[in-house]
Amino acid sequence: MLIHSASQLLTLKGGPQRGQTLGSLGIIENGAVVIQDGKIVAVGTTEDLKSSFPNEPTFDAGHRVIMPGFVDPHTHLIWAGDRANEFELKMSGVPYLDILANGGGIISTVKTTRTASMEALIAQTRPRLLSMFAHGTTTAEAKTGYGLQTSTELRLLKALIALDDESPLDLAITFLGAHAIAPEYKDNPQGYTDEVANTMLPMLKEWWETHAPRLPLPFVDVFCETKAFTLEQSRQILIQAKSLGFPLKIHADEFDNLGGAALAAELGAASADHLVRTSDADILALAKSDTVAVALPCTPFGLAEKDYTPAGKILAAGGMLALATDCNPGTSWNESMQMAIALACRYMKLTPAQAIAASTINSAHAIRRSDTLGSIEVGKQADMLILSVDDYRQMGYRYGSNLVRQIIKRGRTYSVDAGYYQSA
Amino acid sequence: MLIHSASQLLTLKGGPQRGQTLGSLGIIENGAVVIQDGKIVAVGTTEDLKSSFPNEPTFDAGHRVIMPGFVDPHTHLIWAGDRANEFELKMSGVPYLDILANGGGIISTVKTTRTASMEALIAQTRPRLLSMFAHGTTTAEAKTGYGLQTSTELRLLKALIALDDESPLDLAITFLGAHAIAPEYKDNPQGYTDEVANTMLPMLKEWWETHAPRLPLPFVDVFCETKAFTLEQSRQILIQAKSLGFPLKIHADEFDNLGGAALAAELGAASADHLVRTSDADILALAKSDTVAVALPCTPFGLAEKDYTPAGKILAAGGMLALATDCNPGTSWNESMQMAIALACRYMKLTPAQAIAASTINSAHAIRRSDTLGSIEVGKQADMLILSVDDYRQMGYRYGSNLVRQIIKRGRTYSVDAGYYQSA
Repeated sequence: MLIHSASQLLTLKGGPQRGQTLGSLGIIENGAVVIQDGKIVAVGTTEDLKSSFPNEPTFDAGHRVIMPGFVDPHTHLIWAGDRANEFELKMSGVPYLDILANGGGIISTVKTTRTASMEALIAQTRPRLLSMFAHGTTTAEAKTGYGLQTSTELRLLKALIALDDESPLDLAITFLGAHAIAPEYKDNPQGYTDEVANTMLPMLKEWWETHAPRLPLPFVDVFCETKAFTLEQSRQILIQAKSLGFPLKIHADEFDNLGGAALAAELGAASADHLVRTSDADILALAKSDTVAVALPCTPFGLAEKDYTPAGKILAAGGMLALATDCNPGTSWNESMQMAIALACRYMKLTPAQAIAASTINSAHAIRRSDTLGSIEVGKQADMLILSVDDYRQMGYRYGSNLVRQIIKRGRTYSVDAGYYQSA
Repeated sequence: MLIHSASQLLTLKGGPQRGQTLGSLGIIENGAVVIQDGKIVAVGTTEDLKSSFPNEPTFDAGHRVIMPGFVDPHTHLIWAGDRANEFELKMSGVPYLDILANGGGIISTVKTTRTASMEALIAQTRPRLLSMFAHGTTTAEAKTGYGLQTSTELRLLKALIALDDESPLDLAITFLGAHAIAPEYKDNPQGYTDEVANTMLPMLKEWWETHAPRLPLPFVDVFCETKAFTLEQSRQILIQAKSLGFPLKIHADEFDNLGGAALAAELGAASADHLVRTSDADILALAKSDTVAVALPCTPFGLAEKDYTPAGKILAAGGMLALATDCNPGTSWNESMQMAIALACRYMKLTPAQAIAASTINSAHAIRRSDTLGSIEVGKQADMLILSVDDYRQMGYRYGSNLVRQIIKRGRTYSVDAGYYQSA
C-alpha cells in the first residue's frame, strides 16, 4: 500500500534524540510511505514514490499529517475497580492520610484486583486498551503490580499476554511485584523485598520461559520511593533481576530524591520514570547513560500538584527524554498520549515537536524497541497515524479531543469515526 | 421512549444552584425517564415508570449514568484559520509581546476570519461543533467577535444561524463586536466603542428582527479588560444594548480587575465570565444578583497560567457558578466540557458533583435557558447523556477521553462509537 499526500510526513528518522536534538521531526512535505507485509519499504515524496511504485494500491492521506504511532512507555494498564470515590474525597478537601486510613490508596486497588478473576481483569482492562489505541498509541508498556502476591501477579501477567494477543495494540510487559509493600508485610518491608528478589523473580523467569517463550522477557521495575522501596531494597531487586537476564526499569523521585535515577543509570536500566525530584547529580548520571528519562506529566496533573519533571534540565544535561501517560486508577486515569503532550507543552515547556519526539522514537527506546518502532523509516514496523489536521503543531495546542483519524498498525488500517457519532 | 436502568439518573432538579447548594444532583438510583415529542414527560425509578408506561418503547441504559446534556455557556466557536504557530512560539519561550509585534494574537484570527467566505467559515466551524456534540454538549453559546467590522460580524451571525439550523446541537448566539478594538481604530478605542454602540447595535437589532425573527435576540457581550474596553466603554455598550432589548454578558477580570463583574450585576446581565482577578466586593455584588459567574478553567490551562477563578469564594458568597470551555483559537482550543470539568476539579477544587451542576443547570441559567434545559424534569427538553460509566464521580476523575456513550437531543438518540475505531 502506498499512502500518499501527507501535508507533513514526520519521519522521526535517525534514532533516539538526546538533549537539545529533541524535536527533530525529519519532515517530508507532500510525503508518502509504502507498506508491504506490515513493514515500511519506502519513504519519500508523493511524486517520487508514485513513480517508483506505479502498481502499488494507494491510500490518500488527504493533505493531513502522517506520523509514527505513539509508544506509551509507562502504564499500569491492568487493574480491577476504580477509585472515583477517593477522587471525590480528595477534591472535597479530605487529607490523603485520612483516605489511606480508611482503606484508600493503592491497597484498595490491590484488594479489588486480588479478588478479580482473569476474565474480569481482561474485561475491565480491554476498554482502556482500546481507548489508548483509538487515541493513537500503537504500542504500550503495561505493568503488573496490583497483586503483590505471586498468584495474582501471575494472573495479571497471563491477562496481559492474552490482551496483547487479542488486541491490535502491542504490549511491552513489565513485572512490578515491587510496586508497594504487600499488606502482609506492612511491618516487614525487607521481608517483602526478599520475597520479590529471591522467590518471585526466579519463579517468573522459569514461568515465562515455559509459558511465553515466544515473547521477550518482561521488564522488572521497582517503586524506589519513601514508604515503598528504599534505594538499597531497589538495588537488591534490580540486581537480582539483572542477574536473571531481565531488562530493568525504575520508578524514581516522584516525591523524594532517593537516588533511584543514578541507580538506573548504573545498572543500565532501559528507563527511569517520574523524575520530579531528581537531583542535578542524578540528572547528569542519567544523561551520561543509555537510560531514558521518562516524564509522566499526567501524574502531577492528576494529583493537582505544581511540580513537573524538569525537562529543561534533563535536555540541557544531554539526557534522552520520553513521555508516558502513567495510566492508573489512583493518581491519573488518562489513556491518551495526546493529553500527555498537551500537559508536557504547558508544564514542562516542550514544543509540540519535542513532545512528539518524546512520545515516539524516544519512548520506543524507553522500552528498547527503537530499532523497530517510533519512526517512519525503511525496515521498521508499519505503525503510524494519520491525523485529522495538516500541521503537527496542532498537537498539544488543541486538547480534550482526539486528533487521530486513522491508525495503521503493522500495515493494517483502522479508522477513528470522524464525526464521533451517528444517528441511531 | 422509556429509557431505563440507569445506575444513577442525575436529575439536577430544582433550578439553578446558588452558593453551597451547588452539587445537588438529585440522584435516582435505577432511574428511568420517559420522552415524548422531544420532551420529558416522566422521571422516576425503572420499576415505577415501567409499570406506569407499559406500552412505551424501551431503551436500556445498561446500568450506566444518565445525566442532562452539557450546556457550554461561553465559546468563541466561529473563526477561520488557527494559531498553532503561535503556540509553538510561546512554548519555545518567545515573549507574547514579540508574538503580537509579529502579527500574532487575536488580530491574526481577525485577519483570517475577515477574508473567509461564509462557506469557509461554516466548513471550518462544523467539525468543532460536532466534536462538542460528541463530547456531550447539547447546547452551546457561540460568540461572534473575530470580525470587528459590520460586514464580517454579520457574516459570522449568518454562519452561526446556519450551523444552528443544520446541526443537532443548539446554539445560543452572542454578538461580541466588542471583542477587541478593531485594527482600524487602534489609536481611537473610543471611536470603535461609539461605532459598536451607536451603529452596530441598532443595525443588529433591525437585521435580527428582519432575518431571524423566530430566534431570540442574541446576547450582547463586551471584553472589559485592560487593552480592550474600559469599564466606562463597556457600560456605554451594554447600556445601549439593554435599551435595545438585548440580553447581556460580559468578559471581566481575566487579567485585571476593572469592575466588570459588578457592572454585570448592576445591569442584570445573564453572566459575567472569566473572573480570575475579581475583587471580593465584585464577587459579593455578583452573589447578590441573578448574574451567573462563569468560570473558564481551560483558559488559564491553555495559557499555562497558575491562577484560576476562585470558586470557593464565589460559592461562599452565595454566587451561582457555571463552567464553560471558552473554546477559541488563541488561549484554549478545547471542545470538551468533560475537560473543563477535569480542570475545575483540580484547579478550582470543585467536586465532580459541583462541576456537573455547574455544567448543566447553572450553565443553562448563564444563557437564560434553565427553564427548558439543564435538568431532567418533566416538561423540559429531552437533552441528556448516557455515559459509558456507572458512577458520576468518574467524571473529572478520568480525563483525556470521552465518557459519553449516547447523546439524546430533543428526544433523538445519537451513539458515540463505543470502540472509537473500526477496521477499514
